[in-house]
Amino acid sequence: MVSTPRGDIATPAFMPVGTAGTVKAMLPEHVRATGADIVLGNTYHLMLRPGAERVASLGGLHKFMNWSRPILTDSGGFQVMSLSKLRKLTEEGVSFQSHIDGSRHMLTPERSIEIQCLLGSDIQMQLDECPAIPIAEEAARESMLLSVRWAERSKAAFEKMSAPGQALFGIVQGANYESLRRESLDKLLEIDFPGYSVGGLAVGEGRAEMFRVLEFTCPHMPAGKPRYLMGVGKPADIVGAVARGIDMFDCVAPTRSGRHGQAWTTAGPINIKNAKYADDPEPLDSASDCPASRDYSKAYLHHLFRAGEYLGPMLLTWHNLQYYQDLMAGMRAAIAAGRFDQFLADFQSATGEAI
Amino acid sequence: MVSTPRGDIATPAFMPVGTAGTVKAMLPEHVRATGADIVLGNTYHLMLRPGAERVASLGGLHKFMNWSRPILTDSGGFQVMSLSKLRKLTEEGVSFQSHIDGSRHMLTPERSIEIQCLLGSDIQMQLDECPAIPIAEEAARESMLLSVRWAERSKAAFEKMSAPGQALFGIVQGANYESLRRESLDKLLEIDFPGYSVGGLAVGEGRAEMFRVLEFTCPHMPAGKPRYLMGVGKPADIVGAVARGIDMFDCVAPTRSGRHGQAWTTAGPINIKNAKYADDPEPLDSASDCPASRDYSKAYLHHLFRAGEYLGPMLLTWHNLQYYQDLMAGMRAAIAAGRFDQFLADFQSATGEAI
Repeated sequence: MVSTPRGDIATPAFMPVGTAGTVKAMLPEHVRATGADIVLGNTYHLMLRPGAERVASLGGLHKFMNWSRPILTDSGGFQVMSLSKLRKLTEEGVSFQSHIDGSRHMLTPERSIEIQCLLGSDIQMQLDECPAIPIAEEAARESMLLSVRWAERSKAAFEKMSAPGQALFGIVQGANYESLRRESLDKLLEIDFPGYSVGGLAVGEGRAEMFRVLEFTCPHMPAGKPRYLMGVGKPADIVGAVARGIDMFDCVAPTRSGRHGQAWTTAGPINIKNAKYADDPEPLDSASDCPASRDYSKAYLHHLFRAGEYLGPMLLTWHNLQYYQDLMAGMRAAIAAGRFDQFLADFQSATGEAI
Repeated sequence: MVSTPRGDIATPAFMPVGTAGTVKAMLPEHVRATGADIVLGNTYHLMLRPGAERVASLGGLHKFMNWSRPILTDSGGFQVMSLSKLRKLTEEGVSFQSHIDGSRHMLTPERSIEIQCLLGSDIQMQLDECPAIPIAEEAARESMLLSVRWAERSKAAFEKMSAPGQALFGIVQGANYESLRRESLDKLLEIDFPGYSVGGLAVGEGRAEMFRVLEFTCPHMPAGKPRYLMGVGKPADIVGAVARGIDMFDCVAPTRSGRHGQAWTTAGPINIKNAKYADDPEPLDSASDCPASRDYSKAYLHHLFRAGEYLGPMLLTWHNLQYYQDLMAGMRAAIAAGRFDQFLADFQSATGEAI
């Protein structure tokens, strides 16, 4: 459990991604109805459009997007590196051009915190650098040390600018090198944060390698503070990471794949656009309490996607978010009952996934 | 009030258009929550995709689209003439190529009724021909007489194929010629239908001319049976047509314009994409019970449209449908209280529209 003034977050928790101030194709009351305690906002997108100062003048991100519970924001750094144009990284920060209108911006650790405070974020992230794997060890160490220096600057800025009840997490980097992950964590522990993220994973290294990094990183993370694995993942990634000690997750997978016709089910993902669903009278999950899972046949969902109707992405996104939240609730119940090993075995046998 | 086995329809009624088995960008429970008693389905779209026989095998259109209340369907004729390719009209019916996949189809009065019965439509329409205005009187009369012959064939087919509780409406044609509208109505009255539609309007003749046609047509329509003005319209069209005796309406205006950023308000339509709304903290209607009208600022809606987010069309469609249903409810209350003249005066003064 993570407690914030805007409400508690049951862990392990999955945070739906609300990139630009909206969990795509979802009403906020339905996001909440799936069981989500918290959503994520993207600093990069929001700083460019509609702009952090504008959101602040309108009363903050919670009011803007009609979501009264906790919001976590990233630092913007990851998406600057993946989406923006003409970016340049220096000790000071990263300068870049907007992918929307070409306007020039500078993101520093201080500006990132300022933006997150303008948005009113409950859980904020330090600016970090997130290199792809594979990367040579020396380059990975230099990058990790830059992220540590940015962690120090982020914390100093946060202490000046934040409101009571807000929190800043440090981000463990070090690619897939055990010694670097340990060094990164040790330095962040010295700075002292109320929670720690594991960054720089799910960047192409593969599931087994990601799990290997978690196995030598998580045991050294403080037991009483939340551990957040950024940008992860598919259901099997999440289940495996929970087994290795992670508490918090975010990923666009349920929303993005829902918009493209992929639905998660207890037997794995299906593509509703497949012709075999054209006459299928069964809903995605007749036992679910979620209207999107229960009240519409696969044949209807298939039709909506074939016809390019808004309601297709709306319903499949909703269903997928419900699937994810049910997965998290199932893990929480299994952990509380001391039968998580059985949960793992059942999940592997139902999905055929190695975790 | 129009009564059906699937529920009553308070009149004057506005029917949201659910073209392809979905009121675009709306959940059916929210369509109902706006106050809609009935929705419209389009025979042309549904016969081509997913196919009427398929919908029937899945339990009918109500179950397919998760809408348990009444559904009205058109005959398909209007959209064959406006959307399909290589169409050819004969006494027998109209042959055409699908605009979706080029497949060849034949729509006759009998096939149109068969399709509407396969869909399970509660209120069905006869196949008719709907010429544009202006049209020469002799051509308008020939077309009207064809529609009358198709009305006879439609009724015969309906009596063979329909289920108890379903209804078939005849459609008054005759362009903007008073003698032809009278002749059309007289012949339909001889055939005898439980309701009558006014077709062939809102096809480019302008509001004043449409009102003129209603003024010489409605007084001769039977007082105890519903009068449905097809494909109409904007709020001022509807208010003016109610004043002239119409009971039922359908139009894509609230849904289509909602998807394109236009919101109706009591002071007329606004375009939410306009830059002046970027910092507007007010909702579209703070006094509304509709979440879409009440819980989101214009600045947020503006942002959603600028960012191309699904939630923009979702919320503006919802708001517009609520606006339309509130307009109908306001007229029903004014009529019941004997103050419809005052309603008309207030509407004209608030919107500046001549009705």
